[in-house]
Amino acid sequence: MPTVDLNADLGESFGVWRLGDDEAMLDVITSANVACGFHAGDPAGLITTCRAAAERGVRIGAQVSYRDLAGFGRRFVDADPRDLTADVIYQIGALQAIAKAAGTRVSYVKPHGALYHSLLSNHAQARAVAEAVHTVDPELPVLSLYGSVFFAEAHRLGLRTVPEAFADRAYRPDGKLLDRKLRGALLHDEAEIAERVAMMVTTGRVVAVDGSTIPITVESICVHGDTAGAVAIAYAVRDRLRREGVELAAFT
Amino acid sequence: MPTVDLNADLGESFGVWRLGDDEAMLDVITSANVACGFHAGDPAGLITTCRAAAERGVRIGAQVSYRDLAGFGRRFVDADPRDLTADVIYQIGALQAIAKAAGTRVSYVKPHGALYHSLLSNHAQARAVAEAVHTVDPELPVLSLYGSVFFAEAHRLGLRTVPEAFADRAYRPDGKLLDRKLRGALLHDEAEIAERVAMMVTTGRVVAVDGSTIPITVESICVHGDTAGAVAIAYAVRDRLRREGVELAAFT
Amino acid sequence: MPTVDLNADLGESFGVWRLGDDEAMLDVITSANVACGFHAGDPAGLITTCRAAAERGVRIGAQVSYRDLAGFGRRFVDADPRDLTADVIYQIGALQAIAKAAGTRVSYVKPHGALYHSLLSNHAQARAVAEAVHTVDPELPVLSLYGSVFFAEAHRLGLRTVPEAFADRAYRPDGKLLDRKLRGALLHDEAEIAERVAMMVTTGRVVAVDGSTIPITVESICVHGDTAGAVAIAYAVRDRLRREGVELAAFT
Amino acid sequence: MPTVDLNADLGESFGVWRLGDDEAMLDVITSANVACGFHAGDPAGLITTCRAAAERGVRIGAQVSYRDLAGFGRRFVDADPRDLTADVIYQIGALQAIAKAAGTRVSYVKPHGALYHSLLSNHAQARAVAEAVHTVDPELPVLSLYGSVFFAEAHRLGLRTVPEAFADRAYRPDGKLLDRKLRGALLHDEAEIAERVAMMVTTGRVVAVDGSTIPITVESICVHGDTAGAVAIAYAVRDRLRREGVELAAFT
Repeated sequence: MPTVDLNADLGESFGVWRLGDDEAMLDVITSANVACGFHAGDPAGLITTCRAAAERGVRIGAQVSYRDLAGFGRRFVDADPRDLTADVIYQIGALQAIAKAAGTRVSYVKPHGALYHSLLSNHAQARAVAEAVHTVDPELPVLSLYGSVFFAEAHRLGLRTVPEAFADRAYRPDGKLLDRKLRGALLHDEAEIAERVAMMVTTGRVVAVDGSTIPITVESICVHGDTAGAVAIAYAVRDRLRREGVELAAFT
Repeated sequence: MPTVDLNADLGESFGVWRLGDDEAMLDVITSANVACGFHAGDPAGLITTCRAAAERGVRIGAQVSYRDLAGFGRRFVDADPRDLTADVIYQIGALQAIAKAAGTRVSYVKPHGALYHSLLSNHAQARAVAEAVHTVDPELPVLSLYGSVFFAEAHRLGLRTVPEAFADRAYRPDGKLLDRKLRGALLHDEAEIAERVAMMVTTGRVVAVDGSTIPITVESICVHGDTAGAVAIAYAVRDRLRREGVELAAFT
Repeated sequence: MPTVDLNADLGESFGVWRLGDDEAMLDVITSANVACGFHAGDPAGLITTCRAAAERGVRIGAQVSYRDLAGFGRRFVDADPRDLTADVIYQIGALQAIAKAAGTRVSYVKPHGALYHSLLSNHAQARAVAEAVHTVDPELPVLSLYGSVFFAEAHRLGLRTVPEAFADRAYRPDGKLLDRKLRGALLHDEAEIAERVAMMVTTGRVVAVDGSTIPITVESICVHGDTAGAVAIAYAVRDRLRREGVELAAFT
Repeated sequence: MPTVDLNADLGESFGVWRLGDDEAMLDVITSANVACGFHAGDPAGLITTCRAAAERGVRIGAQVSYRDLAGFGRRFVDADPRDLTADVIYQIGALQAIAKAAGTRVSYVKPHGALYHSLLSNHAQARAVAEAVHTVDPELPVLSLYGSVFFAEAHRLGLRTVPEAFADRAYRPDGKLLDRKLRGALLHDEAEIAERVAMMVTTGRVVAVDGSTIPITVESICVHGDTAGAVAIAYAVRDRLRREGVELAAFT
């Protein structure tokens, strides 16, 4: 039976501040991108999230970020590649110990927010992050968009790359994501999102904002963890995929 | 030939701000307590320090702290034990990855500053830190003062404890350190410090502030890394010990 | 007609993280203790809260704290008095500019969380904070508990002190608050809380945890802004007071 | 007698970490750009620096920055204009209270590091900062390069602009600064720097990196406060200017 991975960002609370419903989301996703403390995530909260993931057999990825709590990692920071490499090594290592304390381990790396977007095209930062992952563990896969500069740098180092698609984001005709500040960039209707994901997974195609149908390469589907209705969307996606005979399972 | 370990705090710069002369100190010490980012230490600087330690065969310890950059970890923080355990796990893990990137590894744990002092008598925090170390790796030894509550908690979990003495700190008759804010708490004269260390190591005794001679159990000597003349003091201690036939070597 | 002030902690979001419902609370309270960035409160969010307060004629106080975002200012920090004075001056000044940008101004100072509790009995820190307030503006009143060491230090400098009572906290027979970690320390029932406040305001007495009735001096009532049902409790208190012929109004 | 202002960045220590020699620099400069806590500067240290400036009659400016202690404000951050406005208001207000505590006041605003460079051409951020300054006090002048987008936005709001030149930076033929990462971007020779400043001030011209002579509009000269030899360079500039009959004096 065909399978696809479903990933979401978790562990994004900080101290007294709560964000998202990690427990509920962990009941449906197969891979959890867990914050590492630089854009969100206090250590005690991270252990709780990792433990909840471990109990459900959900795989954990290190969601590495620029150092920017105030901006939640959503602002580009023109970080020096040498600093960025070290910052990413630091974050993965921190989460590895946290995951171990929770009885599990870090199985992949996914950049967060503005870093994610930067790595689509910024060669120096993409190389810096790829080298960080390779240094910590050359067996760690990385998640990003197919065709990203990050994947090119990751391939150069022999890292495994896992292309993902966004369930609730609009695509441009060139296969890139529509800027989230633009109107229509975020989809909200559960049924529409689920239908769209089903098409992506079963046909390898998605309808872009101009109405054209474009190819999309996907081994994992990203659903957002922090929006209202996030959990409901995740279930809608799962159920719709099942109707197509596709089961959710962590990428192998 | 008898040996003793010589440890110092390193990696305590942050961003543009420099503190201490890590390279020079690494030429003489045998164990480096490397900051983990919570009281000092940016990841890129930590890699540089760990690499310099690795090149010289100097062992690395994780110098864990309260989260307090502004206070350099020198202020007691009434942290909840559950938070403290997670904070320490996070810090050790972060330094483990940094050390690995530098071609070495974390070989022990030493609490920093106010946390060090708290763990001498605060049971809840001592247990929290001991549990953190045990969770990350039960083979990691911990450094502290002989008789500390931290050692009691560490023993309870089966951790190895390494008692240390401070080369340049005055001792009270009860074997505790004189509060560093008090007059005479810090020694500055190289020859006096070296002589004192030689007595500690060869006789297991030290002269307290009231003139009495008290027993002291020591497997490692701590010299400060951030004071003026720190490097000169370290060499004076090494040379004086050599005249007694004692070589510096990492504790085993 | 007799009046009493009703104050609550606001502006305690940070970046993407939301806490409390500032707009709703501002519809009922008469004084807003606005965070200053050290335990919570990003500048853009603080402007929004101050503007909402200004629109409703609600007075703003600077809710100063230890520097501890990760602990939300709820952990005692053994800060040096000289540092603490400067930290408080910095925070009040920052909020003064924010308030001015919102068309209003800072009218009083109230310590937050662990600092609030420390100042009840810690002379050095109480003096440090009182001196900070006096330095910024000797006309700024301070809020705390009647009989606190903070009030003693404030009086010494000629600051006006405004004693407050907590609507939803249990009192010990000696007039102090029961430790919030203890069972029964926090009241949750709206009607019970409202009744209790009415008794405090109209009779100057409150029932302590041992059943005894103790005197309480109060010019302002504090309701919590971040708990579930906070807004409902505030309205219940207001309505109950009105039935006693007491109106809510900022202290003068 | 003709005069020119001499400004430098001060107050850039943080906690235990020292940077620059503020006292020595204050003996020669006429305007001190004092950090506001976002890239450097702990409140207690800022009071010390402001007090030293007040004792010498040196004017204080708020050196506002992106929120980036780890990067010392030297990394571009793609901050939202609304956040940036609030961050700048917060910083100026904080320094106003600190300056008042030191017996002086904030007399101008100068952006720091990467924010300084961004405001030369980034309209949205330039407008955000100009609006922040105008909101706090429309009488506060701003320092930047002549022709910057920041000055255009400042003029739009009626703010006074004070153009400055850099004593030790190489200029491109178009009047912009050579990227500090490029070879030759920073001058180090005292005599050469002093000669260059004398030419700028007396002729309104400077020699660019290609050997061409270009016009430069300058009311203030910036010397760096954190480099080795910074104080010596400042004195060399002052002495060389005196030989031309130009005295140092704060801009009016």
